[in-house]
Amino acid sequence: MLLRNVFLLLLCLVAVSPSRADDGYRLWLKYDRIANAAERQGYVRVAQFVASPGNTPVLRAASAELTRGLGGLLGQAVPAVPSAGSRTGGIVLRVDAQASAAGQPLKAEGYRIFSEKNNLVITGRTDRAVLYGAFALLRQVQTRQPLAGLNLSSNPRIDFRMLNHWDNQNGTVERGYAGSSIWKWYELPERLDPRYTDYARANASIGINGVVINNVNASARYLSAEYIGKVAALAGVLRPYGQRVYLSVFWAAPKVLGGLATADPLDPQVKQWWAAKSDELYKAIPDFGGFLVKANSEGEPGPQDYGRNHADGANMLAQALGRHDGVVMWRAFVYKAGSDDRFKQAYEEFQPLDGKFDPKVLVQVKNGPIDFMAREPFHPLFGAMPKTPLVLEVQLTQEYLGFATHLVYLGPLIKEVLESDTYAKGPGSTVARVVDGSVDHHALSAIAGVSNIGSDRNWTGHPVGQANWYAFGRLAWDHELSPAAIAREWTRMTLTTEPAAVRTIADMLGQSRSIYVRYTMPLGLHHIMGESIHYGPQPWLAKAGRPDWTAVYYHKADSIGLGFDRTATGSNALALYKPEVQKQWGDARTCPLNYLLWFHHVPWTQKLSTGRTLWNELATRYYTGADSVLWLQKQWLAARPALDPALYADVAARLQTQRKEALWWRDACVLYFQTFARQPIPAPFAPPTRSLADIKQLVQLYQLK
Amino acid sequence: MLLRNVFLLLLCLVAVSPSRADDGYRLWLKYDRIANAAERQGYVRVAQFVASPGNTPVLRAASAELTRGLGGLLGQAVPAVPSAGSRTGGIVLRVDAQASAAGQPLKAEGYRIFSEKNNLVITGRTDRAVLYGAFALLRQVQTRQPLAGLNLSSNPRIDFRMLNHWDNQNGTVERGYAGSSIWKWYELPERLDPRYTDYARANASIGINGVVINNVNASARYLSAEYIGKVAALAGVLRPYGQRVYLSVFWAAPKVLGGLATADPLDPQVKQWWAAKSDELYKAIPDFGGFLVKANSEGEPGPQDYGRNHADGANMLAQALGRHDGVVMWRAFVYKAGSDDRFKQAYEEFQPLDGKFDPKVLVQVKNGPIDFMAREPFHPLFGAMPKTPLVLEVQLTQEYLGFATHLVYLGPLIKEVLESDTYAKGPGSTVARVVDGSVDHHALSAIAGVSNIGSDRNWTGHPVGQANWYAFGRLAWDHELSPAAIAREWTRMTLTTEPAAVRTIADMLGQSRSIYVRYTMPLGLHHIMGESIHYGPQPWLAKAGRPDWTAVYYHKADSIGLGFDRTATGSNALALYKPEVQKQWGDARTCPLNYLLWFHHVPWTQKLSTGRTLWNELATRYYTGADSVLWLQKQWLAARPALDPALYADVAARLQTQRKEALWWRDACVLYFQTFARQPIPAPFAPPTRSLADIKQLVQLYQLK
Repeated sequence: MLLRNVFLLLLCLVAVSPSRADDGYRLWLKYDRIANAAERQGYVRVAQFVASPGNTPVLRAASAELTRGLGGLLGQAVPAVPSAGSRTGGIVLRVDAQASAAGQPLKAEGYRIFSEKNNLVITGRTDRAVLYGAFALLRQVQTRQPLAGLNLSSNPRIDFRMLNHWDNQNGTVERGYAGSSIWKWYELPERLDPRYTDYARANASIGINGVVINNVNASARYLSAEYIGKVAALAGVLRPYGQRVYLSVFWAAPKVLGGLATADPLDPQVKQWWAAKSDELYKAIPDFGGFLVKANSEGEPGPQDYGRNHADGANMLAQALGRHDGVVMWRAFVYKAGSDDRFKQAYEEFQPLDGKFDPKVLVQVKNGPIDFMAREPFHPLFGAMPKTPLVLEVQLTQEYLGFATHLVYLGPLIKEVLESDTYAKGPGSTVARVVDGSVDHHALSAIAGVSNIGSDRNWTGHPVGQANWYAFGRLAWDHELSPAAIAREWTRMTLTTEPAAVRTIADMLGQSRSIYVRYTMPLGLHHIMGESIHYGPQPWLAKAGRPDWTAVYYHKADSIGLGFDRTATGSNALALYKPEVQKQWGDARTCPLNYLLWFHHVPWTQKLSTGRTLWNELATRYYTGADSVLWLQKQWLAARPALDPALYADVAARLQTQRKEALWWRDACVLYFQTFARQPIPAPFAPPTRSLADIKQLVQLYQLK
Repeated sequence: MLLRNVFLLLLCLVAVSPSRADDGYRLWLKYDRIANAAERQGYVRVAQFVASPGNTPVLRAASAELTRGLGGLLGQAVPAVPSAGSRTGGIVLRVDAQASAAGQPLKAEGYRIFSEKNNLVITGRTDRAVLYGAFALLRQVQTRQPLAGLNLSSNPRIDFRMLNHWDNQNGTVERGYAGSSIWKWYELPERLDPRYTDYARANASIGINGVVINNVNASARYLSAEYIGKVAALAGVLRPYGQRVYLSVFWAAPKVLGGLATADPLDPQVKQWWAAKSDELYKAIPDFGGFLVKANSEGEPGPQDYGRNHADGANMLAQALGRHDGVVMWRAFVYKAGSDDRFKQAYEEFQPLDGKFDPKVLVQVKNGPIDFMAREPFHPLFGAMPKTPLVLEVQLTQEYLGFATHLVYLGPLIKEVLESDTYAKGPGSTVARVVDGSVDHHALSAIAGVSNIGSDRNWTGHPVGQANWYAFGRLAWDHELSPAAIAREWTRMTLTTEPAAVRTIADMLGQSRSIYVRYTMPLGLHHIMGESIHYGPQPWLAKAGRPDWTAVYYHKADSIGLGFDRTATGSNALALYKPEVQKQWGDARTCPLNYLLWFHHVPWTQKLSTGRTLWNELATRYYTGADSVLWLQKQWLAARPALDPALYADVAARLQTQRKEALWWRDACVLYFQTFARQPIPAPFAPPTRSLADIKQLVQLYQLK
């Protein structure tokens, strides 16, 4: 009878297990009960309690996450206790100043998980390290890895792992496609949206430890007393999850807020204003991270307005931070009109300043020389500023990669950049090793992802956008990880653990970025998207605010051929790279096709390594790229049985839109470039059924007020 | 043993009953199980099934809502069946072309619920009427009214009950404070966010039957073929819930989209363009509702650009709609510079056009002559255009009423306007009866609320904002309802049914708007808020784009007194009203204090009916108003035991902000006006501890880029 009752209890537990549609809010921290009872029991045996001194907010967050996560996964309460005492079969959190792994002392944030007296010990030199270890252990269970006898350790390879929010004070998000900002400025500091905590949990689970909360096109208001109070309230939510708050600053703040006559970095009053402001910030936010600065770029004010240079400005801010433990991240995204090739402008402005920056200054460089195109060669500044720690800035929000309507997993893009070899100190001087400081032995290292997070219920609009947030954090922690492994990991934690479905979806993710490149900007084409909205195709764009905001500036299509000659016969931007790199890209006959039109103006009739002429290869890539979306749809359908129905329907619908718009890109680009190549669409492909004029109207629509 | 098992089953049902925090998404359609078993059983007896022919999408929506709602409330499945047959104790849906109530035929959307052969019959002449009846029956259960022997019927008093969304094509919402737009244009038409359906359910539950989905400052893109496809997809979601889609139109669309040289309403090509566009719209959306137009207002183009008037423009559009069943709602919110008082400008432009409009045209008039102030006299156009059906436009989003941070229930404001007597056809010619058409016997009647809905999880930012959406719908359906009864009804459905808590909260709601008026713009002060953002106080604002965008234009403070003389000795705007109204407001000694400074420039030393001088009364209202927020906090705390903890905390935090900002308003206004009155803050109130200069900085902050 007892059995029968237990059976009944189980019955109704099953009956009430979460049947409601998955709205994506829980991200990869779902913690749904493990369906397989035997599998579950295996974990139960080694996770019967969580022992934590809990003497810091971070440790309390760690044990709370473990009891919540394990409680959900194991379908039974996992109690938190102050210490294991003589108990075994549990998890022990331990901060140990001497903690080491494989004989090496761990980094401050590195963790180790090992077995001791039939308990699993999560240890590290700081409570933050233990927090990261706690999430690592949960990940093991979420991905169904064994815990028994576990012995793993991990150090972050990069110190500052940053999210940059381009969130505006009015609640909009520049280049955001997932609703409005998650920060509710009118409610702060009194109301702390519970969402802030879930955001902090998600960041901590992937090792992100710094958050720039406002747009680099910054408002001065964040530096006002009232807003510092609001920012401090947010910092209080992020702190227990190991994240420090940073602010983007408006260079002219001393004038706008301080009423000074100038913002000249060498002006004593200006220096004093910033020093006083820093003190005010640290009084409110003792662990304030520092400043991110976009200066003398795209109309933002800066030190050059006063005849000073970027180093003058950055160093002044660094000195203003003074004794406080903060840094200045100064963006190198500048392109003053003048030089014949925007590709070279950041290099020309910043490379000569190498060695002139204060030790507290890092220079933040976008992954490529233009602007977050779907594929770019690595930025020539990487490897060219050995005396300056460089921050790698990648974009997670899909400004140029289909907004929130196209399925594009960015892991491979980020990895491609990290693996690029600058040859700065010989072979193996990859961007990753320049950024993590190992090439030039820098004390500071940092990487930044421009957030794709908004107020949409599922945080990122496209459900797969979550994978980009996730992959960035994982690669920021360890750039040796493979994007494919991360894709599988994310899929298991977020969508399904069914092995075939995991393979299918990870395969979709792995292919998705090259598919997008193929139907939008193949062979090294770049910056041919629509004006200002950056959504659809507009290769015919010939007039804009500045020449380098047009498309023709970049593709240089003419009756002879296509592409931007950046060799010695052209802008010679190629010369900014080390000889080994120049060798890779310098010869049109041997240059990898993915970079071909980045560096060469190639005749339409030129035979490529594929055996096709440029025109035929171009058309082929547009057609096969657009048709690959049909493959994505087929794959997604195949995974359907393993997926939550609401989530399946969401992505399936977005894939329909993606297919429609892939055809839009294809038709726009082949019809436009055909007017130069004057050749037919190659067999077996059928020419577009609409005219170039029809297509142009589609794009104009998005420019309408 | 069976008993024991049943007991166990009950146990775990209880154990799993929704314990998660209420995030407000479900609005007033929560359908949580009725806790009291006896009470529940009472309803079970009369709601054992839902019988519906289900032969239309609307009827299917009605029975789906009943089975969902009753299933939740009764804690057991309520099956839907095609017909009752011989069964009793259930609910029967019946469309009956002859349906009547109390001997009177019902209106097309009027419903009746009555008992027949031990079943409850919900009937009406159309399936939409039955849908409204279904929600009315659910409301009975949600508010714990008896069903047995129920016999009620209700007709809507106004035909078109509209929500106007000021949502922009880029996802922002003009004057929206609850996140971004709920419409996801880049996802449409392929993806239909499930949220659209819940939005439609909520509207249907309060009788809203028309939705203008885009901002009156309209983009032309909604009239493009691509966007018409997107709009049609939305219309498909709203249709089963009895709602028609309308579009705000950009007057110059024939030029921008059609490539015409002009948008002159009398130009044959322009007429033809609009006629063709209407045909295109009705082909895609057979029940398209029509157009809303903001023309020649605040920089928008319009017929006056071509020397035509509003009637020329509106009538051209009406004729373009031609044979289609649609209407034109033409906004009277215009105030061309020139006249000495903005108060009079809409009247001067529109009143002379009375009788010149096509029968398909309605003129949409804001509730007051200025712009959605916290309190305004009713707009003088009401009662002054007997030959034209007037739409009453009220604002639900709290542009001038504290955004989403202040608790302000707008029921009393809307009711105050509806009850205002225009004396157009003698006493009792209330705005309500002008609008519902009964004063002038119009064939069409309409009312519009400017939506406060956004993508925030709880739809309206402030949880009590939901009550404003709710109250608007209920009053639009029946303007005889009392705001207090609606507040109780909403509270029971949304927050708690505990009687004392319902009384407490309904009392808070009832007082909240007068409290807001007292600490912001008492005694008829108006338009003294911050420039452009309209949030904080800025009574000192003396320079702006135009004089009537400043504050001093309206309060006219000087050494003698305060207020705008709109009597014969001043702008004489008062003369726009009927003599009986002029009598109410025309004499400063007898004018109700709530309207005093709307019409009179009153000496600081003038004794008012309260026995206090103007200055002392003004200061007293600011101080008592700000202190009343403490009362709101006390009330909310008292209701705490009956409330969901997350919801309690949310509102409690917002009330803290409200208190802080009430003091901000109080200090700003008393310190500023004191510079004119040159009198002390009256006892027992303590002077502000901060200076006017400090306060001014707070507001300037919100104007910073």
